[in-house]
Amino acid sequence: MTTNRQWVLSSRPVGMVQESNFELRETPVPEPGPGQMLVRVIYCSLDPAMRGWITDRRSYVPPVQIGEVMRAGGLGEVVASSHADFAPGDIVSGTTGWQEYCLSDGSGMMPFRKLDKKPDLRAAMGVFSGAGMSAYFGLLDLGQPKPGETVVVSGAAGAVGSVAGQIARIKGCRAVGISGSDEKCRWLIDELGFDAAIDYKTEDVAARLRETCPTGIDVFFDNVGGPILNAALAQINLKARIVLCGGISAYNAVEPPPGPSNYMQLVIMRARMEGFIIIDYVPRFPEAAAEMSRWMAEGKLKSRDTVVQGIENAPRALRMLFEGGNTGKLLLQVGPEPTR
Amino acid sequence: MTTNRQWVLSSRPVGMVQESNFELRETPVPEPGPGQMLVRVIYCSLDPAMRGWITDRRSYVPPVQIGEVMRAGGLGEVVASSHADFAPGDIVSGTTGWQEYCLSDGSGMMPFRKLDKKPDLRAAMGVFSGAGMSAYFGLLDLGQPKPGETVVVSGAAGAVGSVAGQIARIKGCRAVGISGSDEKCRWLIDELGFDAAIDYKTEDVAARLRETCPTGIDVFFDNVGGPILNAALAQINLKARIVLCGGISAYNAVEPPPGPSNYMQLVIMRARMEGFIIIDYVPRFPEAAAEMSRWMAEGKLKSRDTVVQGIENAPRALRMLFEGGNTGKLLLQVGPEPTR
Repeated sequence: MTTNRQWVLSSRPVGMVQESNFELRETPVPEPGPGQMLVRVIYCSLDPAMRGWITDRRSYVPPVQIGEVMRAGGLGEVVASSHADFAPGDIVSGTTGWQEYCLSDGSGMMPFRKLDKKPDLRAAMGVFSGAGMSAYFGLLDLGQPKPGETVVVSGAAGAVGSVAGQIARIKGCRAVGISGSDEKCRWLIDELGFDAAIDYKTEDVAARLRETCPTGIDVFFDNVGGPILNAALAQINLKARIVLCGGISAYNAVEPPPGPSNYMQLVIMRARMEGFIIIDYVPRFPEAAAEMSRWMAEGKLKSRDTVVQGIENAPRALRMLFEGGNTGKLLLQVGPEPTR
Repeated sequence: MTTNRQWVLSSRPVGMVQESNFELRETPVPEPGPGQMLVRVIYCSLDPAMRGWITDRRSYVPPVQIGEVMRAGGLGEVVASSHADFAPGDIVSGTTGWQEYCLSDGSGMMPFRKLDKKPDLRAAMGVFSGAGMSAYFGLLDLGQPKPGETVVVSGAAGAVGSVAGQIARIKGCRAVGISGSDEKCRWLIDELGFDAAIDYKTEDVAARLRETCPTGIDVFFDNVGGPILNAALAQINLKARIVLCGGISAYNAVEPPPGPSNYMQLVIMRARMEGFIIIDYVPRFPEAAAEMSRWMAEGKLKSRDTVVQGIENAPRALRMLFEGGNTGKLLLQVGPEPTR
């Protein structure tokens, strides 16, 4: 291969992100210079946060510029390297971007790191990715769930929510998930062991929260925002923790929608609402990976993904996140896994 | 005196609280039964939170019932007692209600406690009341200000805000107050030592926050909510603390107004928004009183109040809180201070 197909941002979306906001370019595969490596990208991560990265505003990372390769987390195989820490054949994860080949000095929003000899690549992109880590640290560090408490998770069938709810169960909590279809709800209960699930598209969320959380909500792990956050706030318990992981319901809004009118429940209930960004936890990923590996080996933590094939489908795959098209982690497969 | 004038709640307000929501009744002064005392009320506290106490909804105290004496914090002199802990002549503070004489067994939302032999009664109702304690514990426990940080206080000329801003200064922070008149702003700067003040009625709060907080906001102590909270959220720093003490801008709203659309800044900035109710801190009042006494003796902490005379003016005084009519603590004087 001598061609590198890559998606660059061609215009900023107004409202829902469109395929037309990106342009697929073909460039020659570059050669690594001193201190650089060339990574053949195998998987790209699709995350709701990517919608924020293409908006021109103050955030935790600078926005992707027009003409720049679209930023994305990913995983690949080193095919050439002048970098001291990486050698051809290494499997690495990092900020690859939407492209078939990534030239890197190892830095990035998520710096590149070498994975174990023969990792499960899809698990590396799922439970052991930023999404799984967000579930782990968001729930445990900010949510601080105690056995017997009720943990409600929105976006529960997504990459983060599905792991957060399972960890809540592992920690002895009652877990209630909110998701967008009957099929997802059944998956949460039947496969992942959630105690209850609410289909926000067909059910009255406030009424169903009252039914499924008869003793109130102790931890609300929010990936969604909007009316769902507001409904949850109305039913929080004393000293509740609202973990703000995301707010996907508003990511494609042209104007920011109203905030949660029930926020004063935080006063009445002496409760806390706190946000986090997973990149702050990178140094602690190994401890989380070790514990989650054990849970997976014990069958307590299950992983699922939805894989879209082909770099050419990246923008379409991104849209799927906002249209409920994925269950579990959404991945784009850009190239084949290495043969073992 | 044999008559006890008392205000009872006669109807629930819809929108702005009205004098017509209360009825002034004359009843005989009661006699204390076993375990009871009779308190001649000297001062009643007027607090924005009282608007919430007359709304029929889930909160941290049950709502005042129709026909019940209006709940209020207060201070008075014991005139008769069969209570083991209180004797005639004692000066006590507690939940007296809007009345000239209060019959009590010592319990209440704020339980009765005996004050020092010859306390400064107006300071006891100000800096050393629930309002001053809210400033102290809200700022220090939840806000955790560090020297050199910027603390912004809304409702800064009120009983809580004026103390919170001064404590921020004492702790080595830059203090910026938001209040509702040029006169109040000048008082904050010239008398209380705030570094800057913003008149939200005539100035663009967002623009002025940018000017007065050039390095961003580390702690926002909020008494107001609404657009002011939203403007502050837009300018918070990494790991900022939003202390939710109150939200007076919405207390008389018929429908809850939209919440802060900028709440997702809590994610981007890994920040925290937390509420509290001062009654949880009652056991720790003595430590706060000791420290604030020292600050007052050293001239670092100043107290101011606005005193309305006469039990007959209680509902009118309550309205003043929502109309910006007070600077510092708003008190109702119901009876004379004892001669020394």
